[in-house]
Amino acid sequence: MANIGVVSATNNQVILRDYVSGFPKESDLYIAATTVDLRVPPGSMAVLVKNLYLSCDPHSRTRMGKPDPLSPASIAHAFTIGKPISGFGVAKAIDSDHPNYKNGDLLWGRVGWEEYSVITPTPSSHFKIHHTDVPLSFYTGLLGIPGLTAFVGFYEICSPKKGETVFVSAASGAVGQLVGQFAKMAGCYVVGSASSKEKVDLLKTKFGYDDAFNYKEERDLSDALKRCFPEGIDIYFENVGGKMLDAVLENMRTHGRIAACGMISQYNLKEPEALHNLATIVYKRIRVQGFAAVEFFDKYSKFLDFVLPYVREGKITYIEDIAQGLENGPSALIGLFHGKNVGKQLVEVARE
Amino acid sequence: MANIGVVSATNNQVILRDYVSGFPKESDLYIAATTVDLRVPPGSMAVLVKNLYLSCDPHSRTRMGKPDPLSPASIAHAFTIGKPISGFGVAKAIDSDHPNYKNGDLLWGRVGWEEYSVITPTPSSHFKIHHTDVPLSFYTGLLGIPGLTAFVGFYEICSPKKGETVFVSAASGAVGQLVGQFAKMAGCYVVGSASSKEKVDLLKTKFGYDDAFNYKEERDLSDALKRCFPEGIDIYFENVGGKMLDAVLENMRTHGRIAACGMISQYNLKEPEALHNLATIVYKRIRVQGFAAVEFFDKYSKFLDFVLPYVREGKITYIEDIAQGLENGPSALIGLFHGKNVGKQLVEVARE
Repeated sequence: MANIGVVSATNNQVILRDYVSGFPKESDLYIAATTVDLRVPPGSMAVLVKNLYLSCDPHSRTRMGKPDPLSPASIAHAFTIGKPISGFGVAKAIDSDHPNYKNGDLLWGRVGWEEYSVITPTPSSHFKIHHTDVPLSFYTGLLGIPGLTAFVGFYEICSPKKGETVFVSAASGAVGQLVGQFAKMAGCYVVGSASSKEKVDLLKTKFGYDDAFNYKEERDLSDALKRCFPEGIDIYFENVGGKMLDAVLENMRTHGRIAACGMISQYNLKEPEALHNLATIVYKRIRVQGFAAVEFFDKYSKFLDFVLPYVREGKITYIEDIAQGLENGPSALIGLFHGKNVGKQLVEVARE
Repeated sequence: MANIGVVSATNNQVILRDYVSGFPKESDLYIAATTVDLRVPPGSMAVLVKNLYLSCDPHSRTRMGKPDPLSPASIAHAFTIGKPISGFGVAKAIDSDHPNYKNGDLLWGRVGWEEYSVITPTPSSHFKIHHTDVPLSFYTGLLGIPGLTAFVGFYEICSPKKGETVFVSAASGAVGQLVGQFAKMAGCYVVGSASSKEKVDLLKTKFGYDDAFNYKEERDLSDALKRCFPEGIDIYFENVGGKMLDAVLENMRTHGRIAACGMISQYNLKEPEALHNLATIVYKRIRVQGFAAVEFFDKYSKFLDFVLPYVREGKITYIEDIAQGLENGPSALIGLFHGKNVGKQLVEVARE
């Protein structure tokens, strides 16, 4: 009756200390050790997983704030004080009571920021990993939510045509580095913005961007865009919001499309930046579409079929910024909001 | 050889005196008499028309400003100082050299603000009027560009579903009064805003709006919207822009749609109003689509098939505000920007 093996383990967790307003600090999070039962109850449909890689996402910031008591969505979305934060990660099934997962299976999806998580997988929350000839960490980025975001946002939402002009903000980030490469594949002219010379160089030398600029060195963002796009912008892949979005609106061409999956520049502000160029949406008949990759999981297998051959042939480059160990998770996550990461930021909690 | 009939006539015109900045004034326009040849040259494909009704459109304001010398589109779009302004109107062919039009035919499309215009009809500039059992003036509104705008914007762009909530600004105007009625036909809950008690009453008593408010009497537009839409807004039909758009963004529901065909509140401002709630587009995965009915002329016959039976059965109400005589055209047009009109503003230049 008794299981002779190890039945519990120490489980270090990244805990939210208090709701965040303004820029988050490392001290808003702390590490605490708890104990986890390594077996899941029979009949629970649950899986005890060991977390291998955790994805650092700007989106987490929106979950660290105090929830709006009048908004059930905001309450459901927010992290809980004193509990581990969560996000997307790559994990290995240690003890599974779920028919679709057996012990030893690899998967990616929603997990806690901790060494072990108990999950109850559904087709819209977790994906089994079938292809392990590529780095497992890619399932937090290139082959995970950021990859699907770039794919859906660029191909489905922006409907690119050969010869069109594309601008990408936060262009060396988890999503942006892919959008640039997809844009080149689609025969577009693509320009990216980033926050350092190092990143701008990466854009041009690694990710195939035709041109790039460091937005921090530009006195006037609209002038920078006019210089890069004398004929205007057909497609804007929006990751930052605020002043950049306003400058882009001023430079859009007729029938331009804007796919907006994030506005990282705004998440930490008490008062969001003011925009003035909205009337361009009418004058130029522009479409702006907010979207979230999690609503496009039905496209995930199509995306993998599309992208895996390129990855295997080395035709897509993906740069990761990997923090080692859960204890370095808080600084890695907070660093996102200061543009510290170069490429996709993630945390390696354990190797397989 | 000589034509014995009348070969020329006095042609009064509404002329642009100078480029407008800020609010236009009646004195920015003046009436001048010229002479027009009532025959068009053989082989010209032109038609000499007598103008019957001219449409007053907010959009004209964007053509009265000084064109941007760097923008060919802006130059092409702008009115010319010392020349008659133009717009959409209903007219009668007096002398046609065009194979599709014979003398006496009625048509609507682009004409000058004058008693007679020489036009060169194309399928994307002019439509022959086949149905004359409805008021001819309706082809400047209900059966013209505003009607097509309401139809395309609501049905095609907003994809309404039964039970959804719809908000319409400038709701008693040329477009808004129709959107409200279309929304009720689609089984939606619809609320409108307007600029006077009289208009608010019209919305509720004539156009079927479930609720309405006078935005000038609201201290806080977002509060007004929260009162009318405690669960939020699924569809916003945008006619005004600025502060109202910002308040609407704050109150949109997840997957909301915004169709933007005009932002009249912004056209006369030297500095457009600041908006702050753009991040909602990401948080709520909202789609904002700028559009112009002139790009949907392929839907016009479908629209007529849809709307004419309702018009004939009296199931659609359309209120017009008709200025009599070309000489009253300038004040009618300028009045639009002060919300003076009640319903669709047009000018009757002549009866058939």
